Amino acid sequence: MSQYLNYAIQLAKMVSGQTGVNPPVGAVVVKDGRIVGMGAHLKKGDKHAEVQALDMAQDEAKDATIFISLEPCTHFGSTPPCVNKIIDFGIKKVIYAVKDTTLPSNGDEILQHAGIEVEFRHNTEAEDLYKDFFISKSKEVPEVSVKVACSLDGKQATDEGESKWITNKAVKADVFNLRHTHDAVLTGRGTLDADNPQYTTRIEEGKHPTKVILSQSGQIDFELDMFKNTHTPIWIYTQNENLKTDIEQVEIIILTDCSIENILIDLYQKGIGKLLVEAGPTVTSAFLQSQYTNELILYYAPKIIGGSGNYQFYQTKNIFGLSEVPQFEIVNTQMLEQNIKLELRKK
Amino acid sequence: MSQYLNYAIQLAKMVSGQTGVNPPVGAVVVKDGRIVGMGAHLKKGDKHAEVQALDMAQDEAKDATIFISLEPCTHFGSTPPCVNKIIDFGIKKVIYAVKDTTLPSNGDEILQHAGIEVEFRHNTEAEDLYKDFFISKSKEVPEVSVKVACSLDGKQATDEGESKWITNKAVKADVFNLRHTHDAVLTGRGTLDADNPQYTTRIEEGKHPTKVILSQSGQIDFELDMFKNTHTPIWIYTQNENLKTDIEQVEIIILTDCSIENILIDLYQKGIGKLLVEAGPTVTSAFLQSQYTNELILYYAPKIIGGSGNYQFYQTKNIFGLSEVPQFEIVNTQMLEQNIKLELRKK
Repeated sequence: MSQYLNYAIQLAKMVSGQTGVNPPVGAVVVKDGRIVGMGAHLKKGDKHAEVQALDMAQDEAKDATIFISLEPCTHFGSTPPCVNKIIDFGIKKVIYAVKDTTLPSNGDEILQHAGIEVEFRHNTEAEDLYKDFFISKSKEVPEVSVKVACSLDGKQATDEGESKWITNKAVKADVFNLRHTHDAVLTGRGTLDADNPQYTTRIEEGKHPTKVILSQSGQIDFELDMFKNTHTPIWIYTQNENLKTDIEQVEIIILTDCSIENILIDLYQKGIGKLLVEAGPTVTSAFLQSQYTNELILYYAPKIIGGSGNYQFYQTKNIFGLSEVPQFEIVNTQMLEQNIKLELRKK
Repeated sequence: MSQYLNYAIQLAKMVSGQTGVNPPVGAVVVKDGRIVGMGAHLKKGDKHAEVQALDMAQDEAKDATIFISLEPCTHFGSTPPCVNKIIDFGIKKVIYAVKDTTLPSNGDEILQHAGIEVEFRHNTEAEDLYKDFFISKSKEVPEVSVKVACSLDGKQATDEGESKWITNKAVKADVFNLRHTHDAVLTGRGTLDADNPQYTTRIEEGKHPTKVILSQSGQIDFELDMFKNTHTPIWIYTQNENLKTDIEQVEIIILTDCSIENILIDLYQKGIGKLLVEAGPTVTSAFLQSQYTNELILYYAPKIIGGSGNYQFYQTKNIFGLSEVPQFEIVNTQMLEQNIKLELRKK
């Protein structure tokens, strides 16, 4: 039994959402039963978690054990390989929770060759933390979470488009936190016109995600609140070659085909590691039908809206057999006052 | 809403039990919505949490906010005052969870005078973390937790002294963790003879607490397992001036009066900030009757032992009225498989 590996995972979770296309990693250096160093990877391009923790430990790292949420890296990226640093500091034992399948070479062997004991200790919590990162890194697209707030009958609004507010304040606060832990929020033009949303993170010292707007036609109303006094970048993906604006912070990206795949590839190249989709039925359904959605976050208000199929959050042109429709696994359920949150992973 | 103050408190909890007579403190430096530094006070005499976090943040600390689990210090102790370091690094705002009532001067004023915004944000979890520390520091005695494992009818053993094992393996593992998070474990000579205990922490990379034995008569059997190949200090408090041993690690402290008060004052001076009492009825009852017990941790096995009053964990010579007997507040209850753990605070 050891808590230190759990501590390393806790540290990783604290920096989740601020490392862009890099994984959030935590590390704890332990010697003679006490923590002598702790750290996390704070930002892409910055020191890795192991290095932060070793730098804090200094000489105490000699003959100590390091617990890391993810296998230490063996390659020269923005920083030198962590395994070298671990060897240089005289670490005696390395324990990590998840194997990094994206590494070019085997760090265990390098460390063992230097006389360091290495243990890979499987941990489900950490595995869940990196599952999407590995998929994302191999496909070179962001991790995608789709958020939907709806009634028990799956509607984002009444047939007339009335949607403020279906869910409660606790959901709102939870969504602020979702935005804080994602690099960017994507929506469609329809939602912009209907809701005039801000997509800010009204949490103290919180990070506002980059705003991404998908509008094939490029019929954007630049008088909307979102474009006023913004300090956060807004990227508009469109097929409209004539779309132009001189608003600072707004970047227009013209693609010949605004497919979800093309947008995601471009977002990843721009450093977006985690994307939150908060949109109306059209964009939401497109993402849910694509292969790129890792996670679905559903907030249910305990009401039934009825009417016709308007604003049903999932709509498809074709009819699929029950064996073909998207299946999910429920990862977590939570009461948010009188609303319910479901976290689901696409199977 | 901010998670960062909670993160600082989590970091503090990670180092709880390794800071001796100093409080466990955690700090997180946040700028533009991302953590740019984190740290904890790792050891008495070592850098404070704020300094660790600022050192990690470096230039990024300029105009950043620092979240600290405890009010930053204003005095020269083993290290210079943290408020100076906070000012030097150009921090813009300080948010802390608990006021340090033991500080000689008001840090808020010093910081505000330097143009830094300061917010004391009350937090119950952090308050609980430091409650005993403040009492302990003002009285100059360790925080005392008394642990008892017993049957539902409050017996630590049968009338014949059979006590292995009343509680289950999950309790055993939990007790290892209790020991790890205390600087020292205290027991009486009776328990030594009856149980031949080791008082080790069988957790990976765990810290073995200093062992403290209370024996007024000084009739110690140095052949017991505890004294063999020990790497942990053993301190024996006795009134027997003739007690001697040449076992390394064993220190004999002769007091003219081995009262609980005298022992606690001496332990605090030797750097023991958190003491766990694991003993038989005599020593347990003495601590529970004294004013020095902060916490009672009770493990109940779902059995009733009966017999006479032998090994009842709480025994007093005098009979007290119900209004005079010690009262507790239940802080937490937990199932450990089929055993029950109660954490109680003396009222």
